[in-house]
Amino acid sequence: MKYVYVFGGGKAEGSAALRELLGGKGAGLAEMTRIGLPVPAGFTITTEACAYYFKHKQQVPRELTPQVRAAMKHLEKATGKRFGDRRDPLLVSVRSGAAISMPGMMETVLNLGLNDTAVSGLSEATANPRFAWDAYRRFIQMYSSVVENLAKHDFEEQITATRKRFGAADDTKVPVEGWQEVVSHFKQVYREHTGHDFPQDPEEQLWGAIRAVFRSWMAEKAVTYRRVEKINGLLGTAVSVVQMVFGNWGEDSGTGVCFTRDPSTGEPHFYGDFLQNAQGEDVVAGIRTPLPLSELKKRFPEMYAQLDQARKRLEKHYHDMQDVEFTVQQRKLYILQTRSGKRTPAAAFRIAVDFAKEKLIARKEAVARIKPHDIERLFYPVIDPDFSQEKLEKAKLASGINAVPGAAVGRAVFTAQEAEEWASRGEKVILVRRETSPEDVGGMYVAQGILTATGGKTSHAAVVARGWGKCCIVGCEALQVDYGNQRLSVNGRTVAQGDWITLDGNEGLVYEGQIPVAMPRLPGAYFTLLGWADEIRKLGVRTNADTPHDARKAREMGAEGIGLCRTEHMFFKDFEQPERSADRQFAIQEMILAETPEARRRALDKLLPFQRRDFIGIFEAMKGLPVTIRLVDPPLHEFVPHEAERQRELAEKIGVSAEFVAKRVEQLHEANPMLGHRGCRLAITYPEILEMQVRAIFEAAVDCKKRGVQVFPEVMIPLTMDKKELGILTDATRRVADDVLKQANAKINYTVGTMIELPRAALLADRIAEVAEFFSFGTNDLTQTVMGLSRDDAGRFLPDYVNENKAGIFKADPFQSLDTEGVGLLIRWAIERGRSTRRGLKVGICGEHGGDPDSVRFCHEVGMNYVSCSPFRVPIARLAAAHAVIEEEKRKAKGRAGAKERPVAQ
Amino acid sequence: MKYVYVFGGGKAEGSAALRELLGGKGAGLAEMTRIGLPVPAGFTITTEACAYYFKHKQQVPRELTPQVRAAMKHLEKATGKRFGDRRDPLLVSVRSGAAISMPGMMETVLNLGLNDTAVSGLSEATANPRFAWDAYRRFIQMYSSVVENLAKHDFEEQITATRKRFGAADDTKVPVEGWQEVVSHFKQVYREHTGHDFPQDPEEQLWGAIRAVFRSWMAEKAVTYRRVEKINGLLGTAVSVVQMVFGNWGEDSGTGVCFTRDPSTGEPHFYGDFLQNAQGEDVVAGIRTPLPLSELKKRFPEMYAQLDQARKRLEKHYHDMQDVEFTVQQRKLYILQTRSGKRTPAAAFRIAVDFAKEKLIARKEAVARIKPHDIERLFYPVIDPDFSQEKLEKAKLASGINAVPGAAVGRAVFTAQEAEEWASRGEKVILVRRETSPEDVGGMYVAQGILTATGGKTSHAAVVARGWGKCCIVGCEALQVDYGNQRLSVNGRTVAQGDWITLDGNEGLVYEGQIPVAMPRLPGAYFTLLGWADEIRKLGVRTNADTPHDARKAREMGAEGIGLCRTEHMFFKDFEQPERSADRQFAIQEMILAETPEARRRALDKLLPFQRRDFIGIFEAMKGLPVTIRLVDPPLHEFVPHEAERQRELAEKIGVSAEFVAKRVEQLHEANPMLGHRGCRLAITYPEILEMQVRAIFEAAVDCKKRGVQVFPEVMIPLTMDKKELGILTDATRRVADDVLKQANAKINYTVGTMIELPRAALLADRIAEVAEFFSFGTNDLTQTVMGLSRDDAGRFLPDYVNENKAGIFKADPFQSLDTEGVGLLIRWAIERGRSTRRGLKVGICGEHGGDPDSVRFCHEVGMNYVSCSPFRVPIARLAAAHAVIEEEKRKAKGRAGAKERPVAQ
Repeated sequence: MKYVYVFGGGKAEGSAALRELLGGKGAGLAEMTRIGLPVPAGFTITTEACAYYFKHKQQVPRELTPQVRAAMKHLEKATGKRFGDRRDPLLVSVRSGAAISMPGMMETVLNLGLNDTAVSGLSEATANPRFAWDAYRRFIQMYSSVVENLAKHDFEEQITATRKRFGAADDTKVPVEGWQEVVSHFKQVYREHTGHDFPQDPEEQLWGAIRAVFRSWMAEKAVTYRRVEKINGLLGTAVSVVQMVFGNWGEDSGTGVCFTRDPSTGEPHFYGDFLQNAQGEDVVAGIRTPLPLSELKKRFPEMYAQLDQARKRLEKHYHDMQDVEFTVQQRKLYILQTRSGKRTPAAAFRIAVDFAKEKLIARKEAVARIKPHDIERLFYPVIDPDFSQEKLEKAKLASGINAVPGAAVGRAVFTAQEAEEWASRGEKVILVRRETSPEDVGGMYVAQGILTATGGKTSHAAVVARGWGKCCIVGCEALQVDYGNQRLSVNGRTVAQGDWITLDGNEGLVYEGQIPVAMPRLPGAYFTLLGWADEIRKLGVRTNADTPHDARKAREMGAEGIGLCRTEHMFFKDFEQPERSADRQFAIQEMILAETPEARRRALDKLLPFQRRDFIGIFEAMKGLPVTIRLVDPPLHEFVPHEAERQRELAEKIGVSAEFVAKRVEQLHEANPMLGHRGCRLAITYPEILEMQVRAIFEAAVDCKKRGVQVFPEVMIPLTMDKKELGILTDATRRVADDVLKQANAKINYTVGTMIELPRAALLADRIAEVAEFFSFGTNDLTQTVMGLSRDDAGRFLPDYVNENKAGIFKADPFQSLDTEGVGLLIRWAIERGRSTRRGLKVGICGEHGGDPDSVRFCHEVGMNYVSCSPFRVPIARLAAAHAVIEEEKRKAKGRAGAKERPVAQ
Repeated sequence: MKYVYVFGGGKAEGSAALRELLGGKGAGLAEMTRIGLPVPAGFTITTEACAYYFKHKQQVPRELTPQVRAAMKHLEKATGKRFGDRRDPLLVSVRSGAAISMPGMMETVLNLGLNDTAVSGLSEATANPRFAWDAYRRFIQMYSSVVENLAKHDFEEQITATRKRFGAADDTKVPVEGWQEVVSHFKQVYREHTGHDFPQDPEEQLWGAIRAVFRSWMAEKAVTYRRVEKINGLLGTAVSVVQMVFGNWGEDSGTGVCFTRDPSTGEPHFYGDFLQNAQGEDVVAGIRTPLPLSELKKRFPEMYAQLDQARKRLEKHYHDMQDVEFTVQQRKLYILQTRSGKRTPAAAFRIAVDFAKEKLIARKEAVARIKPHDIERLFYPVIDPDFSQEKLEKAKLASGINAVPGAAVGRAVFTAQEAEEWASRGEKVILVRRETSPEDVGGMYVAQGILTATGGKTSHAAVVARGWGKCCIVGCEALQVDYGNQRLSVNGRTVAQGDWITLDGNEGLVYEGQIPVAMPRLPGAYFTLLGWADEIRKLGVRTNADTPHDARKAREMGAEGIGLCRTEHMFFKDFEQPERSADRQFAIQEMILAETPEARRRALDKLLPFQRRDFIGIFEAMKGLPVTIRLVDPPLHEFVPHEAERQRELAEKIGVSAEFVAKRVEQLHEANPMLGHRGCRLAITYPEILEMQVRAIFEAAVDCKKRGVQVFPEVMIPLTMDKKELGILTDATRRVADDVLKQANAKINYTVGTMIELPRAALLADRIAEVAEFFSFGTNDLTQTVMGLSRDDAGRFLPDYVNENKAGIFKADPFQSLDTEGVGLLIRWAIERGRSTRRGLKVGICGEHGGDPDSVRFCHEVGMNYVSCSPFRVPIARLAAAHAVIEEEKRKAKGRAGAKERPVAQ
C-alpha cells in the first residue's frame, strides 16, 4: 500500500486529481510541482493512512515508517540539506489538509528538525543567531502545544519574564541571549509537564508531529465543524511534510500575496504586496508597510520576473485568476499556495470575458463562471463603502428583512397619500407602513424605498418593490408605526414625518439621516457576457411589467416581451399622470359598489379610456414584442377603502351614504381571500369587467397598429379551474376582441390563454389546453395551493421548516425557489398533458420564481418556452437559462462518457 | 317502413322495449296488452313518422296513410264497432307520447269519430242522449282548439250563454237540448273562424288530430320544456289512437286510481278509490266522494276480482308497486295506464323487502331500489303534517338554506353562553347567530336547532350541526340579529330572547311560536334492508364522532369504527360535565398565550386529564372497534376570545394584562387561516401539544385495556405536506406512545397515519406512505386547495358555477359531492402511488363527502378501504356502498354481454 507521495525538483507523484487522497494542500503542492512552478520539496502522507490510524487503535500502518524514511531521504537529496545538520540543517513544516478545506480547524508544526545542534547550524547558515534561536523557541512552543497538548499559558509566561528582564518592548526587541534563555526555560517546562526531555532526534520530532496531525482530525472542534458544515464521507486528513523556506532569511528574502489580475476591476495586471525580509505572519499582522508589486519590479527585477512567469503558468493551468502566496529566500521564489481569487462582481465579468478572449477558457465556461448573485450585486446601489463605519453605527436605527437590495435615502412618510403629495413637490420619500396593500401602490411607486414593520420576503410590499427593483426592508419588528401622530418610534428614538432616513436593502438596515449612497456602473464585460448567454440559452426571457416605464426598463435589461402585465395596478395609479389617479380609483370603486349590471357598466365606461391609454403606452414600449395581459385578478375588497374617512370621501363622490359604502365593504370581506372571489371568478360573476378590459386592450392595439406600432397581444385569464369556465371566458374575450377589430377593420393576431395557478387546472391540463392557446404557470399561487401555504401567514412557521437547525424540512423557501419536488411534479404533469391535446402549446412561468436561478433551471428542464420575471431579474434569468443549457450538456456528456466506460458484455 | 304498431285483443306488435319508437304511452299500452291485461285496443304511429313529418315540410310519409287505414280496420274489427256508425260508433282518443314524459306539454283529442250521425248512434247505444251530445260538444271544442288552434274563449262564451238560458248552475245541469244548441253554435264558430264546416268524416278528423299531435312536438312550450329539462336526442312524439271507453256510461261503469300496495306504509294491500258512473276528470275534480276499494269489493265483487287479477299480473310483470288508472265500462275493466307508484320512505323499505321476500325481485334489487334520500327522510323529524296550513303560513318568519333537515322547537337565544345557561335550566333553545365559530360549539351542542343569518351549506354552523344531525338553517339573510338588545328582527317582526320559534330544516323555513313536530319511527324493513346492504358492500363504513355520545349514536347507526375523532372540540366543551367546560377553555387559552415551552407545558398538563377522560369515553363507546384520532388541527386563533370582555376575563384568570391578551390575539390573526399555521404545523412549532395529546390517547388506551375494553387507536396527523415533516411527527408520536405503554407494561397495537388534504401530500404519496401507516383523505380541505376555493367564501360565486341557468360549470357543489374529475384524479393518483411503496396501505375518507352517495361510489371505485361520515349519514353510506357494488356488477355484466355480442372476426 502506497501511503506516501513525494514532490520536488519539478516532479511529483501526486496531482490535483488525487485531492481525496492527498488533501487540498498536498494535491495542490504536487500539481504546482508538476507544472514546473518553484515549490518547496516535500511529501504527503495520504488520508488513507489517517483512516488506518483511527481504525487500528491509533497505530500507523506498518508500511508507513519505511515509506516516510525513504521520502525523507528523497527530500534531503532534493534540498541538499540534512535533518539535524550542524551547518545547514533541513527544516520542515508538517501540515494537515483534508480534501475539503477546514480553515483553522487543524494543526501545523513549523521549523521541525531544529535541535540543540541544528540551531547552531542555522545560526551559521543565516549568519543570524537571533533568527535561529527565535525559530527554535517557536518550534518548541508549537510542538509542545500541538504534539503534547501543553497549555500555551506556561510558555507565554516565560517569554514575558524574559522580555522584562531584557527591557524589550516587544518580541522583536528580544536579543539572541534572551531567546537562548527562553529555549532553556521552555525545555524545562516541557520536561516538567511530560516527564521526559524535549526530543532532539528530528525523526522522533517528525513522528510526533505526524501523529498529532492525525489526531487533530478527531479533535472535538474538527468533528463539530464537519457536523455543522455537513462535511461527510472524507477518509481523514493528509499530512504534508514540506521543506521550510524563510522570507526573513535576510534582505534578499521576503514574502507576499498577489492576485494574478485586479480583483476589484478585473484588469489584467498583477495586483499584490511584497514584504522584504519578512514571514507570512508579518504580512498579516500589518505592522510594516508592504511594497506594491510594481515597486518590486523596480527594486528586484529578477524576483519579479520569476513571479511573473509563475503567474502566467498559473493562469494557463488553472484557467482562472489566482490568489497566490509566495516566499523569496535568498532571491529564490517559492510558491506556497494558489487558489481561485475572490473578486468583485465587476471583476468577475471582466475576468471571465478576458479569459475567454484570451482563449484560456471557452465562452460557455465564461458564462458558466458568472453566478446569478454577481449580476444582482452589480445593479443595486450600496451605502458608500468609504463612509465612516463609526458614524454609520451611530446612525443605525433597526434591522429588518432585506427584501429588495439596494440603498435609498428619503424623508419618512407614513401614508401612500402623503408619499404622493411629498413626491409631487419634488421631495424624495421613504414610505414607512406597518404593512402595505394594493391601495398603497401609488405611494410605493413614488417612494425611493419602502419600509414595513411586518411581513416577509414575499409580503405585498416585498413583491411589489421587487418588481420595481426598489429598495425595500420588511418585517422590521422593532418599528412602532404611529399613524395617528405620523411618526415611528424604535428603540427609544423617534422619526417624525419629513425626517430623513436611509435604507440599506442589501443588509436590511435602517439608518437615521442621510447616509451617502454609491451607484454602480455596468462594466462593458457585462454586456458581452450576457450576449454570450443569450446565444446559449433556449428559454425565452420575458418580464413582468405593469407600466410603460417598467416595460422600457425591462427591454433595456434584455426582456423579449412581457410575460405578465397585471392590470389591477392600473386601477389605482395613473403612472403617466399621477395627479389623475383618483379618477380611476373612484371609477373602480363605483364599479364595485354598483348594484346593477347597468350601474357597473357605467362605472366601467369611465375606466375604459384609462386602461386603453395604459395599454397603448405598454404596447409602444414593447413594440414588436409580445405582451401578455392578465385580466383583473385580486378580490374586489382590495380596491375599496377600509378607513372610515376614505369611505366617507368615496360615498360623497359617488353619491351614496357612508353607511352603504361601509356595509358593502364589510360584505366584501372574506375569510380566505386567497381562495375567494377573485381571478376569473370575477368575470364569471361580472362579465362586464372582462368586456371592458378586453375592449381596452384591443382598442389600444388597433390604435398602435394604425400608427405602425407592431403589437402581439396575448390575453391571459387568471385562476382558471375548469375547461368549461375557461371556455366561457375565452369565448367572451374573442367575441369582444373580434368585434373591436371588425369595427376598426383591422387584423391583429392575438391569442387567449390562461394562468395555471390552481392544482385542478394543472391536473386537468389536457382539457384546459383544448381551449387555452398558452399556459403561464402562476407559481406563487400554485405554491400556495399545492402546499396549502399562505404567503402572508407562512412567516410564523415556515422559517422553522427551512432552517436546518430547526425542522429543516425544505431546502429553501418555496416562495423564493420553486418546490420542484411537489409543485414541480404537478408542473411537469400539466405541461405533458397540455401538450397531449395541443401540440407545441406555448408554456411559460410568471410567478416570482421566474427570476430565481434554480427555478429557471427547472423551467428549462421541463421544456417551458419562456420565463417571465421582474425587470431587474431579467439579466439573472438570461444567465440562469444559459447555465441550464450548459449544465444539461455537461450531464449528457457525462452520460455518454459513462456509457462508453461501461464494460462490453462478452 | 313500418310506421304503425297495432295492439288489442291480447296481442301487440309493440312492447316496452320500443319506447324510443312508440313513446312511453304507446309502449306501455302495447306491453300491457301483451301481458294479457284488459287494455282498450288501438294503434301507435311511431316517432319516426313525426321525425319524417318535420324533415319533409310537414308531409306525412307516403306509407303512413295505408298503414293507418289498415290499423283502423283492425281496430274496428277488434272492437266490433265502426267509425261513424249510426248505432254504436267507434270513438277514439288521439294522444301524444314521447319516449320521455313531458307532462302537460302536448296534445290530446278525445271522443274522435263523433259526427252528426254518430252522435245519434251513441245516444242510442248508451240510451243517454245527454251524455252523447255532451261528448260531441266536448269533441268539437277540443278538436277546434288542438287541430285548428281556435281560441277557447269563444267556445266557453257559448256554454255560458246556454247555461244561463237553461238556468243551469253548472255544466252537469245542462239538459240535452242545451248541448244540442251548444253543438250547433260551436259548429258555427268553427265555420266562422276556419272558413269551412266542422269535418263530418271521421277519417278526416283522425288525420287532423294526428297532424296536430305531430305539430305539438315543435310548439314553443314543448321546445322550451325540452331545452330547460335538457331532453335531447328524441326523434319526436308518437301518436296513439285508442278506443274510447267511458266510465260514465252508466251505473255499471266507473273509473278509479289505485296503488297495488299502500303507498304510505307499504303494507301489501290494495289502496285506492273508485268513482261510479264517472270519468277520470271527475275523480281529479274531487266533487263526488269516491268509494274505497274495499267497498268496491263488497258492492261489485266481479269488478273487484278483475282488478285484483290485474294487480297481481302488474306486480309480477313490473316488479314494483304500481299506480294504476282504470275505467270500467259496463262491468268490463280497462287498464288505461300503469306506472311505478310514488311512496313514503317507510313504504319504500317495506315494499322493497316484501318484494324480495315474495321472490318478485332479488335482494340486491331490493337494496338497489332504496335511494339514499329515502333513508335521510326516514330519520328527520318533520313539521306535523296534520297541522293547519293556514296557521303555518301565518307563523312563517323567513326562509333560509336547509343545511340540516329535521324540525326543532325552542326558545330563541343569541349567544352560546345564554344557550348553555338556558339549557342548564332545562329549557329547549334555538341558538340564533349571525354566524357561528368554534367558540360557540358548546352552545350549539345544547341547542335544539341552529339558525344563522349568513353562511352556506358548508359553513361552520352547517358542518358542525350536520355532524350531530341537528336541525340547522343557515344563510337566512332576512334575519337581522341584534346582539346588543338580544333579539332578532325580520320583515318587521321581532323575536326577543326567550320567545319560541320553530325551525323546519327540511324546507329551510323559520316559524314564530311552537309548531307541533312529528317524530319518525324506523320500520322493521329498514333494518332488514340495511342488513342486506351490509352483506353486499365491500367498503367499510365508519363515523366522524368527537364525543362518547356521538360514538354510541354512530354505532347504533351501524358504524364500524371511528374514522375521524376531532380533538379540538374537546378543548371547548366538556361533553360529560358541561359545567366544567370553562376549565378546559382557560387551559387551552393559557397554553396558546404562553411565551415559553415551559409555560406551555404547564398549561398542557392541565388539559391532559380532560383529554384522557374524553378518550376513555370514546374508546369505551367504540369497544372492539378502531378509533382514528386526529391531532389538533385548527389555527390557534380559533381558540382565543375575540371580544374585549371575554379577553378581560381570560386575562384575569391566567394573571396577565388584558392588553397582553388583546395583543396576542391580534398577533394570531391570519390573512388566510385556511392556509396558515394549523394542522401538523402547530406540532412542528409546538411539539409539546402533540406530546400531550398522544400521552392522553395512550394513557386512556392503557386504562381501558386494563379494564378489559379492547382498543385499537389510530393516531392521525393532519395537513401533512412532506415526508420529512410527517416523519418528525410520527417519530415523536411513537416515542411518547411507546413510553406510556412501556411504563404501564401494556401492549397495545396502534398505527400512525396521516390525513391527505393538501395536493402536495397527494402528489408525493409514494414518499408519504413510507412513513404513514394509513391515509385518510380530508376531502374538505383537499377540495379547497385543489380548486382554490374557500368553503367560507365560495357562497358568493359558487352558486353561479353550479346553477345550470347561470354558468353551469359544475354538476354539483364540490363541497357536497366530490369533484371526481379534478380532486378525484388526485385521489386516484395518491392511492396508486401510496400503495406502490406500502402494499395494502389502508385508505379511507373522512371529509363531508364520506356520507354523499355519489362520493361513496367513487370511493368504492378507487379502492378505498372505508368511508367515514357523520353518525346520521352512516346508514346512507352503508346503502351507497352496497349500490356501488351492485352498479359495478351490472357494468361488468354489461361488459361481458357486450363482449359476447361482438362479432367474431373471421
